[in-house]
Parts: sequence; C-alpha cells; structure tokens
Amino acid sequence: MKDPFEPTKLKIAIIGGGTGSFTLLSALKNHTSQIAALVNMADDGGSTGMLRDELGVLPPGDVRQCLVALSNSPKVRDLFNYRFEEGSLKGHAFGNLFLTALEKMTGDFAAGVELASEVLGVKGTVEPITLTNVTLVMTNDEGSQVRGEAAITDLDFDGKKPDFHLDPVAAPNPQALRAIEMADIIVIAPGNLYGSLAPALIVPGIGDALRASNATKMYICNLVTKPGQTDGYEVTDFVDEIERLAGGAFLDAVLYNTEKPSDELLEKYAKAGEKSVGYDQEKMQGAPYVAVGTNLLAGSVWQNTSSSDPIANSRTLIRHDSAVAANAIIELYEHIRSQSGQ
Amino acid sequence: MKDPFEPTKLKIAIIGGGTGSFTLLSALKNHTSQIAALVNMADDGGSTGMLRDELGVLPPGDVRQCLVALSNSPKVRDLFNYRFEEGSLKGHAFGNLFLTALEKMTGDFAAGVELASEVLGVKGTVEPITLTNVTLVMTNDEGSQVRGEAAITDLDFDGKKPDFHLDPVAAPNPQALRAIEMADIIVIAPGNLYGSLAPALIVPGIGDALRASNATKMYICNLVTKPGQTDGYEVTDFVDEIERLAGGAFLDAVLYNTEKPSDELLEKYAKAGEKSVGYDQEKMQGAPYVAVGTNLLAGSVWQNTSSSDPIANSRTLIRHDSAVAANAIIELYEHIRSQSGQ
Repeated sequence: MKDPFEPTKLKIAIIGGGTGSFTLLSALKNHTSQIAALVNMADDGGSTGMLRDELGVLPPGDVRQCLVALSNSPKVRDLFNYRFEEGSLKGHAFGNLFLTALEKMTGDFAAGVELASEVLGVKGTVEPITLTNVTLVMTNDEGSQVRGEAAITDLDFDGKKPDFHLDPVAAPNPQALRAIEMADIIVIAPGNLYGSLAPALIVPGIGDALRASNATKMYICNLVTKPGQTDGYEVTDFVDEIERLAGGAFLDAVLYNTEKPSDELLEKYAKAGEKSVGYDQEKMQGAPYVAVGTNLLAGSVWQNTSSSDPIANSRTLIRHDSAVAANAIIELYEHIRSQSGQ
Repeated sequence: MKDPFEPTKLKIAIIGGGTGSFTLLSALKNHTSQIAALVNMADDGGSTGMLRDELGVLPPGDVRQCLVALSNSPKVRDLFNYRFEEGSLKGHAFGNLFLTALEKMTGDFAAGVELASEVLGVKGTVEPITLTNVTLVMTNDEGSQVRGEAAITDLDFDGKKPDFHLDPVAAPNPQALRAIEMADIIVIAPGNLYGSLAPALIVPGIGDALRASNATKMYICNLVTKPGQTDGYEVTDFVDEIERLAGGAFLDAVLYNTEKPSDELLEKYAKAGEKSVGYDQEKMQGAPYVAVGTNLLAGSVWQNTSSSDPIANSRTLIRHDSAVAANAIIELYEHIRSQSGQ
C-alpha cells in the first residue's frame, strides 16, 4: 500500500465531498501538496445516480469534484466538469463518465481515481471513504426507513435527529484510514450535514480512527441552516451532531463565522428557509474543544451560470472565502500545537 | 499555425481513417515520430453517428482510432477504446465522448484533438481532413442520391462507379494541406474504398495538394474485395478509382500483396462475397507508377473479442502484417528516392 503522504510536509486530510470540500481543497493546495480528500460515497442523485442505477458503479460525482479542486490542469479541469446538454448524454458530467468507464473497464474504482489523478495533474490524493457500494438509510423514531441520499436530502426531519446507517455494511477504505492516521490536520468540511458528512462519518471504523489519530481535528462550521433539517442549529449543535454521527467526541477545534451577511442576502435566504448559523460564545467557552470565530465570508459575491465550476454554478451566495478559511485552518493548527507545547 | 512535422526526421502523412490507418500507424510510429494521420470526416454510423445526430458534433470515431494508434499510454489507450455496454451510454466508445465533450465545450474540434493528443501521449499528430461538418453523398447514373456514409457502405453499386461529393462543400483543413506539402512519404491507407478513402480524397483541394507535393505517394492496396462495391477489382482498379476520386493521377507507387491466404480463410471469405484482390503483373509494368508485390499477410491470424483493440475485435481475419507493411513502405520510399537520384 502506498502512503497517502510524504513525510516532511504538513499533511492535511479533509472529510466531506460536496461544495464545502471543493472550496477548502482549492485553497489548501496552495499551502501543501500533502492533501488527502476523503470522500463520502453515498451520493445517488443526478448524473451520479443515473450511472449507479444503469451501470452499478460507485458514485463518481463527489470524487470528480475533489479531483478537479486539486487539479493543476485548467483545460482538463473544465473538461471534467463539462455537462452534456442534449441527447441521451444530457446531464452527465464528463468526469463522471471518465470515472465510470474506468471502473467498468478495470473493475476497480480506486485504480480509476488514480488514473484520473494522473490525467488531471492532481496535487495530493482523493480517497473514497469506502469502496463498498452503499446506500444511505435513515431510520425515523417510529422505525420506518427512507433509503437514498437524494431522497433523504429533500426530507423534513420535523425537529428530530434521525439514525443513519449504510446498506450494506461499509468497509472503510484502508487508504482513508491511513490518511486519518498520518495526518497533521483533519478538517471536517462544511456542507450538507446529513447528506454529505453523515455518510462519511458513519462508515464503521472512521469514528474510531478519528479518535485514535494524533492529528489536530477541526470542523469548519456551515454558514447557513438547511430548512427541515438543521433549522435553529447553532455552531455547537452542528458539532454535537457530527460527533454523534461519528460515534463520540473527537474534535479539537471548530472554526466558525462571525460576520453577518448583508440584509439583502439574509432576506433572500430567509425566503428559502435558510438562516445564518448562530453561536453562543459563553456556551462554547465551556466546550471540550477550542472554538474560534472570525470573518470567514467571501467579500464579493458572484454567480456565473455559464461556468463549469460547481461553486460558481451553485445557488448559494453566502460563501466561505476559501483563502481566508485555509489560512485560518493553518493558523489554528499552529496555535493549538504551540499551546500543547508540541 | 504550428508545423505538423519537425525538420530533421522522415515525415510521413497517412490518408484514410479506418482500420487500415490504425494498422499502419501502429507500426510506422516505430520508424519516426513525424507522422500525421489525415482522417476522413464523413463517418455517421454507430456511436459516432448517434453523437453527430444528437449533438451536432464532427465525427469522433476515426480520429479516436488514429489517436489510439499513435498513443504511448496503454492505460489511456484502453480507456479511449472502451465501449459502454449497458444503459443510455450503451455502444459509445469513451474516446468519442471525450472528443465530443471537448468540441461542445470549446466549439473547436481541432483544439479537442490536440488536448486528447496530450492526454494520450500521442507520437505525431492527427488532423481531420476537413473541419466542415459534412455528409457523404453518392449520385447514381440516374441522378438519384444516397446520403450518409453508413447508408452508402451497405449499398450494392451494381457494377457502377458512382459519383461522390460532400454536402456542404468541405473546406480542407489547412493543417492537413500543410502535412501533405511537407511530407516525405504520403501513404493512402488500405480500407473501405468508398466509405473511408472517398470522403477524404474528394475534399476540394486535397487532390491538387497531392499532385503538388514532392512526397513519394504510395497506396497500400486492399487485400480483399467488398461485395457489391469492388467485386472483381484488381490492384490497378483500386489505383484507378483512388486517382479518379482525387481528380487525377498522383501516385508514385503501389504496394500490393502476393501471398495467397489459406484455402480455409478464402472459403470463409467467399461465403461473405469477399475475394482476394487479384493483380496482373504485365498490366502493371506499363503503369505510370511503380508497383511492388510482396508478402504483406499477417502470418498468425487471431481474434480476441474481449480486447478493446479495434483490430482484434474486427471481423476480418485476412490482414496486413503491420510491421512488414511499414518496413516495405520505408524500403519502397528509399528505393524510389535512389532511382530518381535524390
């Protein structure tokens, strides 16, 4: 097994898979080439869902986005995010077809990711959190189940905190466990708490690996709540849920935003039921983790629907400033190391 | 405009696009890295035809095969030839989707071919013979027309030699003209005479460029006839048709096979209406071109239906030995040069 990191540089593992991971990876790669993106493998919507249904492959979508974030080849990056707009290929991102063809051809998703990494000139490595072909399953209080990440993402949890598991039981990818073990910093990326982070954190063995790792483990908190699922959540609620999903406490630090978005933006978001994530500094002072609040908001807000960049195309306009967040991660790591006398 | 060739090495241009080009390119790349494959752009069958119909792109199929033949990356080569076997992607070669996505994304087929060449580690260059989006049209004696290469390939010409043109009028690709001008050797590849060679040779300007070029121009003659289209054709008939399609004589040499295939193979081919191409040495002695007959047959005949190599998958089993043919091309070129005192 090859090591995910070289020995002498700052080693960072990021857990997530969606837009939040993409943002952080794009900026963190300027600080170190020793990055491992550990990607949830429960996506079953859109192009990815069609490919899983029709061809039985592992979900390529989030892996593709992380590969693109770490790529040094602008042309191939645009190609990987290109979506066909007509005909029977409509909706498919080209990179998804690339990963799917390789998996079908070799029978080995990880080998496909490796070849894609070569072609894209990727800095670092992208590791599926599991190589088991899993479905995310949610169980209600009453014991009834909802299957599939895409279906779960649209649900109203009605204030409950449901149970989640993967079907079949997922084996953690040994390369992902190794990255967690070797990392200096582990970042839980912001993003869809139950749709993106849950399917990564509940993979058996991942929570224990996080607790056993000597890395500085930090969560970059979401900026807004998701209606029906995280309404009214404060920073501490997100942390509590992340640790519940991972089977127990493991975080050393949380980095959260203190800057209020513009009234105009807040109003726009309120119409969709999304609100700024609140924080209670007193409550966090007693927490077993370091909580650091700072301005993490992207200063200029933009949207470019013609771009193949998934961030640019995304609906949300209250965003993390990726460079600021990356700097804050490194500074927080150095601060914690110096405090602990290491 | 960048030059298709470096100045100091033997420069070879091949005109064709189908399996015959693939075979020769695979072997000629061992003699020189200065190869330009000039590819006919009228294919409208199979995966290529679907992509043209649905997305309006230029035909990727033959370009893909030539890129693969010149590639130095075995893994990416296999990937480009991989065909999806299920679902809505069924039948599509991955490399076709690659070229299609690039053309849709950039609006520039040639730029897509260039990026594909980089990714594949291609030795030499692949140049569409035209960048006009054309349909091959055949006109009968009675003036009625048949449109489309796939449709024409299945026709019985009833002993006639029909007229062909491209619709709309095709502009020759300046890079293809330049390759013809700069080449030391121009090879007309064996293959489907009316389906593959005609749509290349009838592009306005190509015939004149061939006649103006100082290259040694040779045709590697087909091994078998095609029922309904080239029944009874001898070597000289193929040459005559090629020069008719190109608007006049231009060939310096023809290389043809003198070895008789096994009775078993001949019998098998006869059932499909295909026969060995005959030759009349006396007739050829008076020809304005050098005709060289030798054993060009592949000694061992094989078929591997699980391979992604289009040659291995092809139905035909009477084949050119690619290494022997490539050597014969170089020797014939040197012979002609020495005869002409150059």
